[in-house]
Amino acid sequence: MRLNTGWLGGLAAAALCGPCAAQAWDALPTVAPAPAGNPTSDARVELGRMLYHDPRFSETGTVSCASCHNLMEGGDDHRPTSIGVHGAKGGRNAPTVFNAAFLTAQFWDGRAPTLEAQAKGPIVNPVEMGMKDLGSAIARIRAIPGYAPHFAAAFGPGDVITIDNSADAIAAYERTQITPGSAYDRYVQGDASALTAEQQRGMQAFIDVGCQGCHSGVVFAGPPLPMGTPFLQKFPIRTDSPYVQKYDLLADKGRYESTKDPADEHVWRVPQLRNLTYTAPYLHNGSVKTIPEMVRLMAAVQLGATVTDAQVAEITAFLEGLTGAFPREIMPRLPPTPGDLLQ
Amino acid sequence: MRLNTGWLGGLAAAALCGPCAAQAWDALPTVAPAPAGNPTSDARVELGRMLYHDPRFSETGTVSCASCHNLMEGGDDHRPTSIGVHGAKGGRNAPTVFNAAFLTAQFWDGRAPTLEAQAKGPIVNPVEMGMKDLGSAIARIRAIPGYAPHFAAAFGPGDVITIDNSADAIAAYERTQITPGSAYDRYVQGDASALTAEQQRGMQAFIDVGCQGCHSGVVFAGPPLPMGTPFLQKFPIRTDSPYVQKYDLLADKGRYESTKDPADEHVWRVPQLRNLTYTAPYLHNGSVKTIPEMVRLMAAVQLGATVTDAQVAEITAFLEGLTGAFPREIMPRLPPTPGDLLQ
Repeated sequence: MRLNTGWLGGLAAAALCGPCAAQAWDALPTVAPAPAGNPTSDARVELGRMLYHDPRFSETGTVSCASCHNLMEGGDDHRPTSIGVHGAKGGRNAPTVFNAAFLTAQFWDGRAPTLEAQAKGPIVNPVEMGMKDLGSAIARIRAIPGYAPHFAAAFGPGDVITIDNSADAIAAYERTQITPGSAYDRYVQGDASALTAEQQRGMQAFIDVGCQGCHSGVVFAGPPLPMGTPFLQKFPIRTDSPYVQKYDLLADKGRYESTKDPADEHVWRVPQLRNLTYTAPYLHNGSVKTIPEMVRLMAAVQLGATVTDAQVAEITAFLEGLTGAFPREIMPRLPPTPGDLLQ
Repeated sequence: MRLNTGWLGGLAAAALCGPCAAQAWDALPTVAPAPAGNPTSDARVELGRMLYHDPRFSETGTVSCASCHNLMEGGDDHRPTSIGVHGAKGGRNAPTVFNAAFLTAQFWDGRAPTLEAQAKGPIVNPVEMGMKDLGSAIARIRAIPGYAPHFAAAFGPGDVITIDNSADAIAAYERTQITPGSAYDRYVQGDASALTAEQQRGMQAFIDVGCQGCHSGVVFAGPPLPMGTPFLQKFPIRTDSPYVQKYDLLADKGRYESTKDPADEHVWRVPQLRNLTYTAPYLHNGSVKTIPEMVRLMAAVQLGATVTDAQVAEITAFLEGLTGAFPREIMPRLPPTPGDLLQ
């Protein structure tokens, strides 16, 4: 789904907002929704926790999901773009895994409809985990006898050590990586003192400037569309803004790079805004280092709006209030590779 | 300290053993000894857990202590030699961090007298974490405001964010990474059924073949020398063994590489034998994949002994009984890098 707000800019955003009082401010649910085909069972979560942290899925045995989406920190890697096998650099900034369960599509361009589909991408990306194909990847896991009982517990008896089940387990685990209970969440649940006065002014400025036109919903990534339906937006809209050249915003053509549909040029999935204090630098190319600069850039490039220094500070304070508590995690125990199976 | 058993081979090992019944079989203590200057406090352990897992200590921001010494698995990385920043390969196999606290010196050649001294090595090794100097490394940590309270809690007020305190914290944490309670430990503590009959025969064969001549003590890395005193041994001793060429055992001159003392050519610290089931491949160059092959190689190359297939199987079974329970670990929470401090 794409809202045709591009050429309307701030006006459209304001229109979308309708009567702003009616625009929902939703707290983050404490449980992420799971698809019928992949219920979030303890056994799947535990297996997913292991696979997520297992570098043996990568060609060199050095890169796991957690290498670029580090759960010990903000669910990403603080790099403009990530470093994969053999020191290769990725093309886009690693998005945080925290609360990705609430996005209606995955990757910067929304090309993966689910977490399950997303999980299989980096494994065979030559600049990420670098396996030559998914068959080789699952062969690595099959060769580790200690994984068998965990797959059996998660997926029942039979030939269950498959790449699809691995992706299901990783997705089930990722659905537990959510951060409810931020100051913002407590505020919209009725604790009027949870946000400071400045943050509350920032919340209003977030509406007034037009940010909420796109950044609505529980993770501020758009309205509650059906899972698999990305909430897309053209970016940058105002290509004559000095920010466009400064941050090289036209080099990557966004969704077009995967669809080759001219209508998708410079179209992106609207990214979430939770836990930004942990996920600098920002944008698909990781070119912007601070939240205030992002606020100025988005106002100028997307909304054609001029924001005051006070508004920038207030919106920044509000966004800082979206950082929640990360789950307390027990490190998984990964089964060993028997020496005679080493390559 | 070096035992001059080289030219005596198996005979010397047997002599060292004395009356074998008198050779101690010690269980692993449940607490690792700490130096007076670095008591193992909760605050130091917690800070050390964070620093140990923080990839920002590395030039690329992608390599932490845990990258090569992975606590989710066997405390190493299952690679012949590790991969550091920019895909660079290290020169020697990453030893497990588990129970390293009981070694009287660190690194394969024993060149670091303590865990504290060891911790500072990989940070500035160009093929490991690749920082240009220790000052640059600690500057990275100083630039992360969230670390300050943790250093203060661990080391008191004042200018305490130093590389030496970082190393102390990492060492304190590593002293908690020990694996008491293996089948072997329970056996020598009086549970006669903890080792199988085959493992018990292997324990006797371990003496009979001469292994225990060097591999004595609580981690089978030698006698209880003063901390800082490596227990060294020449390897390979019998340079005419076919194993020497097969596994390229003379290419690396061992301790000589750091001391440049000809007496140190092919001299190595005797490695520990706990948790071998988790740490394939073996040897300083990671050239040997299985425990049975290691048993045959060491018998031939070090002891000039011929071992039967039954002895190899029994000693292997005994060594498998040295795998203990890994500590249950809570993942640390790493403080974020503020965007305006990103380079």
